[in-house]
This record gives sequence, structure tokens and C-alpha cells, in this order.
Amino acid sequence: MRSMDELFHAQLQDVYYAEKQLLKALPKLAKNSTDERLAEAFTTHLHETEGQVERLEKVFELLEKKPRGKKCDAILGIIAEGQEIIDEVGDDAVRDAGIVGAAQAAEHYEIARYGTLIAWAQLLGIEEAVELLRETLEEEKNANQLLTSIAEDGVNEAATERPQQAAE
Amino acid sequence: MRSMDELFHAQLQDVYYAEKQLLKALPKLAKNSTDERLAEAFTTHLHETEGQVERLEKVFELLEKKPRGKKCDAILGIIAEGQEIIDEVGDDAVRDAGIVGAAQAAEHYEIARYGTLIAWAQLLGIEEAVELLRETLEEEKNANQLLTSIAEDGVNEAATERPQQAAE
Repeated sequence: MRSMDELFHAQLQDVYYAEKQLLKALPKLAKNSTDERLAEAFTTHLHETEGQVERLEKVFELLEKKPRGKKCDAILGIIAEGQEIIDEVGDDAVRDAGIVGAAQAAEHYEIARYGTLIAWAQLLGIEEAVELLRETLEEEKNANQLLTSIAEDGVNEAATERPQQAAE
Repeated sequence: MRSMDELFHAQLQDVYYAEKQLLKALPKLAKNSTDERLAEAFTTHLHETEGQVERLEKVFELLEKKPRGKKCDAILGIIAEGQEIIDEVGDDAVRDAGIVGAAQAAEHYEIARYGTLIAWAQLLGIEEAVELLRETLEEEKNANQLLTSIAEDGVNEAATERPQQAAE
């Protein structure tokens, strides 16, 4: 790689791969969440993610490239840590709290990558890409904020209360 | 794992491992940055990271646990992607831009994890840990902001200008 065009294209492939992996991971997070709002948030975000994949495909089109993913170890690691929470936490409410944390790590990864892509698209003067990527960045930020609200509004408290109730 | 105490401890081990890995990665980012302010930012953040490791050790102490890391695939993936930029980008200015993106992915990972740790420490009533973790979170946010400023203030522009100059 020697130019920003190539770097932008490589980063796009990384994020495309990441979103495709999240399409597989989000239903698992929804299925393993016992809090209903949490499960619903993941299902909603799954649909958003489908739209985000389409936006990325439009950006590939603007570059006159075929949409192709490039293995992204970071998102695989983040998803593996989420799976570990699902597998290893034996209490429903504590697992919900852990799932929120895992999902927020994924959202932050995407927030970082879309922020970078937007800066580079601006630099390269691909205005249409800037707009598409900004729409997605807003969705990622809102998804992250929603997870914080759900955690603060019951999930975290439930996770500390249950063991005490069990001990009574 | 069945309680929030255990989940908090596991997450603390994850972040401790991540910070220790970053202690090794930051000098490589500094060494491979050609922009001086960028190299300096990584060296400064390396020293901050040493302090962050010490703060985590204090939090372990508050839990009456030995400081021990737990392999974190997410940070390994993020660091591997940074190494890929260093290895694969043949132009200095383009590599600098890529290094900023890689480092911001690491910062965002930490921002996510410290945010979660703070929420859980509050929940568990470990006030001293909340304060320590908040100090670190502020440093991570500032480091991320500084990288954005450095990128906007020359690094990104240099990366698009060089190839044109070479073609003249």
C-alpha cells in the first residue's frame, strides 16, 4: 500500500468484514439476553446492521470496487470475548450485564473505525461516502447510548440484586 | 462466574492484560511514526499507560486479589492490525495516517472497557476504584482527542499530498 486510496479501501474491507461478523453475532446476543429490552435492542441493531452493510456496499461502488471483506482479528477477538461471557456466566442477570459490556466494546470498535473512514473519505473528496458513513456512525453511537441506558435502567442493578435475593 | 464481583474481576484482568500489551506496542508505534508530534504523543501515552497499570494494580489490591492478566483476544487483534499497517504501508505519510487509525481503535477499546468497569465499580460500591478508573478513562479520552487533532492538523493532509508531489 502506498496511497490513501489504498489505505481507505483496505479499511473499508476491514469494516465490511466486521459488520458481516456482527450480523452473525447479534442474534446470539439477542437469544442469550434475558432482559427483554436488551434482547429487543440487539434485534433492532441487527436490522440496522443490515442497512450498514448495504451502505458499505454503496461506498465500494463509489470506489468502483467489488464489496469484499478482509479478515479483521479485532472484531473476532471482541466477539470471542462476548461468547466467553455467554458460555461462562452462570447467572442470568450477571450474564446480561456482561453482554452489555461485550456489545459496547463492539460498538466502540465500530465508532473508531467509522470515525477514521469518514476523515479519510473527506480527505479524498468522496462526499457521498462521507454522508453514508456518517449515517452509520450516528446509528452506532445511538446503539451504544441505548445500551448504556438499558444497563443503567435495571440490568446492572438486577445483576447485583439477584445473588442477595438467592441468599435470603 | 455467578456474581458481579467475579465479572468485575474478570474484566479487570482483561484490561490489565490489554494495558500490558500496549506497553509493548506503543514504543513500536512511536518508532514507526515519521510525524514528530505523533511519535511524541505515543511516547507520552506510554508513560501514562505505566501509570494506568499501577492504578489497575491498586484496584486489584482493593479487591484483595493479585494483579494478573487474562488473555484478551480483542486487544491482540487491534495490535495485530496496527502491525499490519506498519508492515504493509510503503509510504511514510500514508503509514502515519494508518497508525493514527490503529491507535484510535485501541483507545476506543479502552474507553469502552473502562466505561464498563466504572459502571460496575459504582454498582459494587467500590468508590476508590471508581475514582482510579475515572482518572484513566479521562487520559484515554484525551489521548484519543490528541490523535484526532494531530491527524487533522497535518498528518492526513500530508498523506494525500505526497503521492501528488511524487508525480510532479
